[in-house]
Amino acid sequence: MTNEIPPMTLKAIGVVRNEIGQSSGQDWKKVVSDIVINSDLTEALDGLEGFSHIIVLWWMHRVASPKVSLKIHPRGNREIPLTGLFATRTPNRPNRIGKATVRLLQRQGNILKVEGLDAFDGTPVIDIKPYVPRYDSAADAGVPQWINNR
Amino acid sequence: MTNEIPPMTLKAIGVVRNEIGQSSGQDWKKVVSDIVINSDLTEALDGLEGFSHIIVLWWMHRVASPKVSLKIHPRGNREIPLTGLFATRTPNRPNRIGKATVRLLQRQGNILKVEGLDAFDGTPVIDIKPYVPRYDSAADAGVPQWINNR
Repeated sequence: MTNEIPPMTLKAIGVVRNEIGQSSGQDWKKVVSDIVINSDLTEALDGLEGFSHIIVLWWMHRVASPKVSLKIHPRGNREIPLTGLFATRTPNRPNRIGKATVRLLQRQGNILKVEGLDAFDGTPVIDIKPYVPRYDSAADAGVPQWINNR
Repeated sequence: MTNEIPPMTLKAIGVVRNEIGQSSGQDWKKVVSDIVINSDLTEALDGLEGFSHIIVLWWMHRVASPKVSLKIHPRGNREIPLTGLFATRTPNRPNRIGKATVRLLQRQGNILKVEGLDAFDGTPVIDIKPYVPRYDSAADAGVPQWINNR
């Protein structure tokens, strides 16, 4: 079935700039980052200022492992039973795309200042979408208990 | 900056199956689709049943145009001023990744039955993530007026 599909190759549309070079238990919710969009795409950001929140997609380029484990202990916590990778947010997935909903603090030309982006400095950004509550949120969402126990 | 990054190539992890072969003004919210995940990844879905909603990423393979317009009229509506593509959900973007939050009705082996996925039959799926409200939703989100006028 996938033979019909032309190759799906991503190009970076920009890069994350912040002070987080490595994971050290930081509270990502408070991290402020600049997303520097390629300057030839500046105009494509016009109108984004009207949204309080945006969705960022990026490539988790720091994942070193060439092998994807189908089941993992979420957050590396062995007290949580082995769980399928698609039921977790592990970066080590078949396609290493990260996704976050973040607050847009400011847009200045090709630079988006955002709060709460859990991506390292230097991360390639592959898409920006406006956050539209009626489409992106689910009012009555249920999650398993391990999600809330942290 | 992007020279440091190895090529970002996606592989399909599955395919969308529904009765929607083309856009005809359907109410996607009510469309029920099967996401058929490649059978070698079945185990990676274990635990997804604990979530009421999932995030689906897919490749919008039907976009024919080789050229991306930096500004467009959202939804092709000329009454809405020209808007940067990243402030819209147009499929014609530098990386043609679609993203939806959908209700997971059932998981049976490698098949996820979902409601509200706005992707055509045959669409390659590239990632499945659990929907986690505290991470994926924004309680106080603001949007421009054109989003609500429809």
